[in-house]
Amino acid sequence: MNKALLALAITLLVVSSAFAETLPSWNEGPTKKAIVQFVKDVSTTGSPKFVPQAERIAVFDNDGTLWAEQPIYTQIAFVFDRVKELAPSHPEWKDKQPFKAVLEGDIKTALSGGKRALFELGMATHAGNTTEEFAQIAKDWIAAAKHPKTGRPYTEMVYQPMLELLGYLRANGFKTYITSGGGIEFMRPWAERVYGIPPEQVIGSSIKTEFELRSGTPVLVRLPELNFYDDKGGKPVAINQHIGRRPMAAFGNSDGDLQMLQWTCAGDGSRFCLYVHHTDNVREWAYDRKSHIGKLDKGLDEAHEKGWTVVDMKKDWKIIFPE
Amino acid sequence: MNKALLALAITLLVVSSAFAETLPSWNEGPTKKAIVQFVKDVSTTGSPKFVPQAERIAVFDNDGTLWAEQPIYTQIAFVFDRVKELAPSHPEWKDKQPFKAVLEGDIKTALSGGKRALFELGMATHAGNTTEEFAQIAKDWIAAAKHPKTGRPYTEMVYQPMLELLGYLRANGFKTYITSGGGIEFMRPWAERVYGIPPEQVIGSSIKTEFELRSGTPVLVRLPELNFYDDKGGKPVAINQHIGRRPMAAFGNSDGDLQMLQWTCAGDGSRFCLYVHHTDNVREWAYDRKSHIGKLDKGLDEAHEKGWTVVDMKKDWKIIFPE
Repeated sequence: MNKALLALAITLLVVSSAFAETLPSWNEGPTKKAIVQFVKDVSTTGSPKFVPQAERIAVFDNDGTLWAEQPIYTQIAFVFDRVKELAPSHPEWKDKQPFKAVLEGDIKTALSGGKRALFELGMATHAGNTTEEFAQIAKDWIAAAKHPKTGRPYTEMVYQPMLELLGYLRANGFKTYITSGGGIEFMRPWAERVYGIPPEQVIGSSIKTEFELRSGTPVLVRLPELNFYDDKGGKPVAINQHIGRRPMAAFGNSDGDLQMLQWTCAGDGSRFCLYVHHTDNVREWAYDRKSHIGKLDKGLDEAHEKGWTVVDMKKDWKIIFPE
Repeated sequence: MNKALLALAITLLVVSSAFAETLPSWNEGPTKKAIVQFVKDVSTTGSPKFVPQAERIAVFDNDGTLWAEQPIYTQIAFVFDRVKELAPSHPEWKDKQPFKAVLEGDIKTALSGGKRALFELGMATHAGNTTEEFAQIAKDWIAAAKHPKTGRPYTEMVYQPMLELLGYLRANGFKTYITSGGGIEFMRPWAERVYGIPPEQVIGSSIKTEFELRSGTPVLVRLPELNFYDDKGGKPVAINQHIGRRPMAAFGNSDGDLQMLQWTCAGDGSRFCLYVHHTDNVREWAYDRKSHIGKLDKGLDEAHEKGWTVVDMKKDWKIIFPE
């Protein structure tokens, strides 16, 4: 290649990358504009709102914000499958609720026991193994399980516009974190592959673990005891514990994310808070104030009051899931 | 500058950087050699022991590993100073142990109450404020306090060879973490400036915090209740909770770090475990098996059994503290 051709090639590369579309699955409009404006403000050297790269922290809820949470949370589907798999070693479950209902495929009865029943199911299916064993179980399950409505793997029930947003933020120097009510050890085995978020940037609920030497080999054993529930006021607590900095941007979809958004947007300088509003009952689901899952009521009011960005999935997103 | 001069300048730059001494405060010998060999093995592309950058995680204890812990842990000095500062609002402390002893400068009596007394002092001096208030308190204290023996700021009582080691690891793609029995919120305000370790890579002991809206402003309030004690078996637990990966290298100085080293070096592939052995009673302190602070007994035996690297401070380090 001669020098003139090389120069031309470089120019073309620069030009084409400059014109590569930002957030291609987002429709043009105020939502996309608000995101792009915020990112430009804080990441452009010399901008009055410029923020050093180390402080560009963005936190994302997972269920309903990065992937679908209907008709039931993915991790609940995991719990049900695990109960069935573990049932042969637990003959007593055949006559004991909520296990009985799960084994009979009666999801409604299984969930009717509320938080207590869910907690019991959770501990029975998440504890009693080592952290490495559990990671393998989660990895194997997510590789095989299918969404009950679409038949697609759960890792394809992620929102394409949000994947683009994660990438866009990272391309502009942001460190992206998950801050989910879901289990930290349930998400870590696949979060890097699916979201590009490494294990150390995944925050979630957890059970207690204990160090043990088993015939001289150190293991971390998972105990049937809650360590931390990463929801509502717990989200800013966990963010502070893990990150030790107040995020600059927070993304959620429910009242469980409200305190995280409040905490984030109460900081000094440029801040960005966004709610994903599920408004598309054709391509996804439409739900908010009265939903059992992902209830968005107080959060929606506060978003309007405070001028936070609200994504209208139906209007703002060209596609929902990766094609 | 003409082209020939430019080429020469670039060549000189490359050559000089290639010959810049690695770990200049470490004497030549088996210890330095072991460190350099490990780092080369895992970070050289094509090496049979090569490890992708994302997995190059190194964890460091703080007290006695990165900075001096004699004659008392720095955070205990902070506690004593805080008791004196808070005393005017606590007239009852004049007659109540262990506060009375602290106020009278009787450190021996103050510490004679053991863990219970220390816990009481810790809660009285660390809780009851917001996370931001406490960060400011820690920052102000560390800027003003002086080491009782040397009169230097505590942040100058750090080990120069370890600062070089942190930098050397990072220059070779490692992510460096602190995993200390000390308070996570006590270290974060200065760890980045002193060690180049950002808040999200500081792990330590913690008290519980709670989200609260104060006249509409969200704050995290520090409660007088232990959340996590990051010592012994707690260290691998906290590493798993925060990082979600097994480290490749671990650095400690006491039996409190033993489980962290066991956990680290039990992983597959190339691993590196190192104990700093305090052997220099002239330039620093000499202590190990019988010490109240930083007791190194079982750890020293296990290091010898397993062939972990043991730093002999007197022999291996040219200087101890930055000059």
